[in-house]
Formats: sequence, C-alpha cells, structure tokens
Amino acid sequence: MLKLDLQTEFAESVVRLLDELAQCGAERDGGVTRLLYTPSWLEAQKLLERRMAEAGLAVRYDCVGNLFGRLAGQGAESGVVLTGSHVDTVRSGGKYDGAYGIVASLTAVRYLRETFGPPSRPIEVVSFCEEEGSRFPLAYWGSGNVSGAFTPEQADGLVDAHGVTMREAMEAAGFGRAERQGEMPSAKRTDLSAFVEVHIEQGMTLERFGERIGIVETIAGQRRYVVTVAGEANHAGTTPMTLRRDAMAGAAEMIAFLERAAQKAGEPLVATVGSIASDPNVPNVIPGSVEFTLDIRHMSETLLTGFCDAVLGTFRLIAERRGLKIRVRSVLHTRPAPMDSVLAGRLERICTTRGIPYRRMMSGAGHDAQMFRSVCPTAMLFVPSRGGVSHSPDEYTAPEDLALGTAVLAELLYELAYEEKCP
Amino acid sequence: MLKLDLQTEFAESVVRLLDELAQCGAERDGGVTRLLYTPSWLEAQKLLERRMAEAGLAVRYDCVGNLFGRLAGQGAESGVVLTGSHVDTVRSGGKYDGAYGIVASLTAVRYLRETFGPPSRPIEVVSFCEEEGSRFPLAYWGSGNVSGAFTPEQADGLVDAHGVTMREAMEAAGFGRAERQGEMPSAKRTDLSAFVEVHIEQGMTLERFGERIGIVETIAGQRRYVVTVAGEANHAGTTPMTLRRDAMAGAAEMIAFLERAAQKAGEPLVATVGSIASDPNVPNVIPGSVEFTLDIRHMSETLLTGFCDAVLGTFRLIAERRGLKIRVRSVLHTRPAPMDSVLAGRLERICTTRGIPYRRMMSGAGHDAQMFRSVCPTAMLFVPSRGGVSHSPDEYTAPEDLALGTAVLAELLYELAYEEKCP
Repeated sequence: MLKLDLQTEFAESVVRLLDELAQCGAERDGGVTRLLYTPSWLEAQKLLERRMAEAGLAVRYDCVGNLFGRLAGQGAESGVVLTGSHVDTVRSGGKYDGAYGIVASLTAVRYLRETFGPPSRPIEVVSFCEEEGSRFPLAYWGSGNVSGAFTPEQADGLVDAHGVTMREAMEAAGFGRAERQGEMPSAKRTDLSAFVEVHIEQGMTLERFGERIGIVETIAGQRRYVVTVAGEANHAGTTPMTLRRDAMAGAAEMIAFLERAAQKAGEPLVATVGSIASDPNVPNVIPGSVEFTLDIRHMSETLLTGFCDAVLGTFRLIAERRGLKIRVRSVLHTRPAPMDSVLAGRLERICTTRGIPYRRMMSGAGHDAQMFRSVCPTAMLFVPSRGGVSHSPDEYTAPEDLALGTAVLAELLYELAYEEKCP
Repeated sequence: MLKLDLQTEFAESVVRLLDELAQCGAERDGGVTRLLYTPSWLEAQKLLERRMAEAGLAVRYDCVGNLFGRLAGQGAESGVVLTGSHVDTVRSGGKYDGAYGIVASLTAVRYLRETFGPPSRPIEVVSFCEEEGSRFPLAYWGSGNVSGAFTPEQADGLVDAHGVTMREAMEAAGFGRAERQGEMPSAKRTDLSAFVEVHIEQGMTLERFGERIGIVETIAGQRRYVVTVAGEANHAGTTPMTLRRDAMAGAAEMIAFLERAAQKAGEPLVATVGSIASDPNVPNVIPGSVEFTLDIRHMSETLLTGFCDAVLGTFRLIAERRGLKIRVRSVLHTRPAPMDSVLAGRLERICTTRGIPYRRMMSGAGHDAQMFRSVCPTAMLFVPSRGGVSHSPDEYTAPEDLALGTAVLAELLYELAYEEKCP
C-alpha cells in the first residue's frame, strides 16, 4: 500500500492542471469547447505534451493525434500499462469530462516515478484525441484507432457541420499526412498489458449513496430506436372517443408502459424517451402520427435483448388493439462491454483496505475503456459528479474526490507496473 | 308536409351552386381559400348576391359585410326567420364547410317562394362574412356582429399575419366606412324570431351509424389548456430509474389517464392532446420539461367543469408523486350552447314523419348558431361528412345527402314562416 494522504496528496496538482486545461477552449458561459482538431484542441494537447515532458515522460503523438507520455520499464515484462482518457469535449461542456482522466493519470504516474523510480513494466499516459462525437458523426475516434476498431482511412468519409472532412481537419492540425505515405506508425497498439481509465461518474448514484469510488463492472450495452405510431388525424371536437385512432394516446400508453417495465426489470436497466414529435401538432386536431425515440441500456446483452423484444412486442400489441400502425427503426446497437473482473477485484481490495466507501456499478454512459475490452484487461473507476450534472458548465467534482480517484488509480498502477501483477 | 322528392328535388341546384362558389378561391390542390375581405371572398359574396336576386330576394349587406337575401312576409308577424351559414373558409379548405349552409338556405327559400309565394313571416337567407378565424385572431365575426356579441369597432385592434388591421381590410373590401360615420345601420339585429343553420357534420358519427340527419341538441362547451410538466433533464445512461424526475414519463401517465377518464365519462365528452413539445428533445437526455395541450368538450357546463377539475387534480397528484412541477394555463373557455328544444322537436318530427334515419347529437365543433342562442330560438342540423373529413380538399358530402338536408330545412322554414309556428 502506498503511503498516500488520500484527501490531499493530489488535490492541488490535479485542480491546477484541470484549471489550466479548461483555459483551452474556455467559453464565456464558463463552459469548455474543444472539438477535435480545432485550435483549442491542439492548444490542450500541446499543454499536456509540455506537462508530460516536465513529469519525466517520453512524449509522442500517433498518426491520428493521440498523445502518449511514456515512463519506460526496466523489468522483463514489456506489455505496456496504458492509462488516460479523452481531451476533446462537447460544445460548452465541463472541465472534468475526459480531462480528469488524463490529469489524474499524469499526476499518478509522475508521483510513482518521483517516489519509486522506473517501473518493471512500462506505463503510458494517454490523451485520446476524441471520444464525444461532437464534431464529426463518429465517437471513440482516438481509442478506436489505438484498439484497432477504426483505421485512419475512415477519416476520409466523415464531414463536419461546415463541410470539412475529418481528413482535412486532421491534416490541418498536423496529423494524418505522414501516415498516408506509410512513414508514420499506425495508431493501432498490440503491446498493451492493461488499460485503466478514471472518469467522473456523470450520474448521481455515488453522491446519493454517499460513496466515493465507483468500480465499473460493465459499460452498458445500448439500443436506440425510433418508433413511429400512425393513426388518423381528425377533428378534436367532432370525433367521438370510440371512433378515434389517436396516435398520441397510443404513444402515451407505450411510453407509460416502457417506464413501468423498466422499473420492474430493476437496476441497472435504464429506458428513456427523450425526443417526441406529433403531427400535425395543433391543439384541436387528433394527432395522425407521433414519433418518439427509445434509449435502453443494460450490462447484459441477453437481458437487453429480452427486454427490448418484450417492450417492442407490447408496443405492437398496443398499436394493434388501437388500430394504429407502428414502425420501429433500430438506429444504434452497442453491445455491453464487461470490464476485467480481476482488475475490478484489485480496485475493490484497494478501496476496502483504505476504508473508502465504494460501489460496484454499471456505467450507463459509453467510455474509451469499452474499446479495449477485447485488446487487454481493462479497468474503469468513477469519482462522484455533483448533482449528476455533466456536459454542462455546471459539471463539478470536489477536489478531495479528484484526489481520491487519483490515489486509487496510483495504487492500481503501482500493482500493475511495479509489482508486475497484470492479470 | 311539403311534396318533396327527398333524394333529388334539390340535388342538382345545390351541387351546381356549390361548384360555382368553389371557383371563388379555388386552389391548385382542389381546396378552396376564402379568407375574410380578400378578393376571392368578395367574389363569392358578389356571386351569392346575384343568385339571391335571381331567386327573387331583396339583397343587402350590413356594415361588416354580412349578405342578406330577404323574402318579405305578408302576415301580422314581423319577426324574421333567419337561415344560413358562413362564406369564409380555412386555408385550402373544402367546398362544403359553411358554403353548404348558405346554398341550402337559398335553395330552400327559392323553392318556398316559387311554390307557395310570400310567407306570413319574413325569411332571410344570410351569408355570414366570417366564422373560421383563419385570417384574424377572432372567430364568429359575422354572426357575432348580427347577434350583438361583437361590435364593428372591435375590427380596429385585430391584425392579420401581414400586419393589416381588420378595419383596413374591411374598408378595402367596401365595408365599415359608412358605419363609422353613422350612416350605415349597425350589424346587430333585434328583429329575429328564429335562426336555423344547416352544416356538414365534420365528424364521422352519422356515416358510421348510417344516419342521414343530425339534430344538434347542444354545441359543445370547450376548454383548452396548456400543461407544462417540469422535472430534471439528465443523462439517459447514468441516471437510475429510481433517481429520475422524468417530465416525459409524467406527461405520458397524464395523457394516458386523460384518455381513460374521457372513455369512462362516456359520449359525447371528447378529450384530446393534439400538441406536445419536449425539452431538450434529444434521444439520450431525460426530458427536463414537456408541454402539451388539452382540448376538452362536452354539452354540459357542469359536467365539463367537473371533468376538467378531476383530470387536472389527478395531473397534480401524478406530478406530486413524481417530484415534478406542473403549470396549467387556461387558454380557451367557451360555454355550451344548447339549441332550442321546441325547434329540435320539430326537426325530429319532420325526420320521423319522412322516415329519415336521424340522430340527436352534440356538435363538437363550434358554429354560427351558437351566437344566436340568447337572441332567438335557434336550430341546427347536420348532414354526413364522408370519413368525417373537413378543413381539407377531401371534404365531401354526397348529393343525395345535400338534397335531404335542404329538404328538411325547407320543411322547418315552411312551418316557421308560412304556418307561423315559431316557438
């Protein structure tokens, strides 16, 4: 066990570097905007590059703009322990989402180097270029290139809101070109022994239950559907209730059923109708059609499939009983990504030993870590988000929680890279 | 009883005049647009003016542009039997809504004059200038001026979508001016002994039940509300079901409850949620607020009040149980307008004697007739609308139904004006 004062050891340095990073892309409303390959994004990577170098790490970029700071190992094992998160943000996002994972990793690795010298196994801190999908219609661009899920060539077909291709944006930021000529190494890594990511929870579970560390067991699988219910638009005054084919009443019954079914299924299943539109959408006409979205997440693919099948089956019965037509389009299908159980066990033991209130939990949101589950043992831990707020200037995590997450990360990295306990 | 062949007597002349009228404001899509005081509207009034004169009626306009064709009476009674409907349409409406009531009245009165000569009591056919509220934000402008509910001065404060005041539009069409100088008679009538309106049903009740005449007992009272449900916008993936304050789920429960309550209350109550909006309305965020409209109609003010109070009370309980805020704004409150029971009884006897399948019913839609209920005994009858379609180019009523409505109207006018049986 490391000799760390959990509440204070890392608080000052983590907060300072987070504040520095938040200057890159700072908005008037207090938010931060760092879209992929923009000047504020490049400014942030350059800042991290300097801080990594100051921490004694060997710095390099890969061909898509992921930034690595390496602390070389001296043991027989060569498999790299990779740790970090993403540097990009949503529009007017907070200063913790992604950034905290990079800053905590850099802070922990600097502490380990300064305290214990070179590890047995190399450690690399990574600042992934992109995770949010806010500029181009693709998420996990950084981690996906490292894990091999994506290749740099896919940048050719993606266009932002201003008509700029991802290829053009990447080259304008100084990346991509050499790779095209075969001079630059591919972003894909095959030398990883573990990946560890720390992140803000972006939910309110830890806060509500007074817990300080979340150990992610699985990143949820996600299904997204667009449901269109079609009936018959008609006069709201002259059409008796018994002669209606009311798309709104049908949609309401479906949405109410979805909530009850999700509550009955129990945690950690979540089901949401976020978006709705009615046609013709005027007060005195019975809606002829209503379209709404479904977002359903759970850590078990089997349960998710069973739940979605049951819900959509009931939707169809509701439509049939009401004389409505229903169309269901699947627009997203992400499988659950279980984290490594051995690494999760290590995190649990660290928390237990330290007396830290923790929770094993599902991540309802997607994260870079899910890209590594088929590449190497992967672990993910959460620190609390005040009020569960994220993707907002109001995003906040207390300094003592930022410090604690960094300390638990440092413990795990020590075990993996210094004690050579990679699973 | 008049010697009428119910199926054919009036079919040809009614269809011909309806087709002529439909040329005034004909749209490429087959619809008809005659907004108040526009050239197509004036063209229609001028056409009707000629047809009234040809039918032997004395023609005049009042100061707001209502057109009257008078068949003078020769008896002791001076109270006028007024019959007709409105000449204006919605944008791209059908050729029957309003127009049929004028054409049927003119056709019936011409038949009575040609067959029986002058009546004991004067009869006037009216083409009301406006009922739909499609150009200016006010409905029943024509009948409201005749009944005294409105005064011509109210035209000053109303503006159309192009910034033209109703006063300017009225004067440009050749009306209003003289009234301002006190030279033109006020539109208000105090000499009416009865008002009778025939109209297309605009619903599908008659068609579905195979009935050919609807005798309106009451024009429904109407309440319109805007309900805003406010919860907490949050991440659809990271917020457990038990920690949500989901405005959409709350709204769905309310809308589903409304439908069940309306079905339980039974006919003729109707309740509709026509319009809905969610905020922020994206698939992966739990809606922070949802706003929807309520349109509730019934023929009893007492029942309507009780129903709305009960529904809104339950909405508040649902909101409270879910930790949601609810705001209810009343945006429309029209009291039910019962028609004269003696006149309804006469219509029923006419149908019974003739063997016509009829139904006593509520009008869920508003009509000019409701403006006369406190002025004189008022009657209203419906003919079927194919598929219940109205306010659409697809509006259609079969010639034999148009003829039958005209015949029943002629019977009632004969009783009222020739047999002096005004209630």
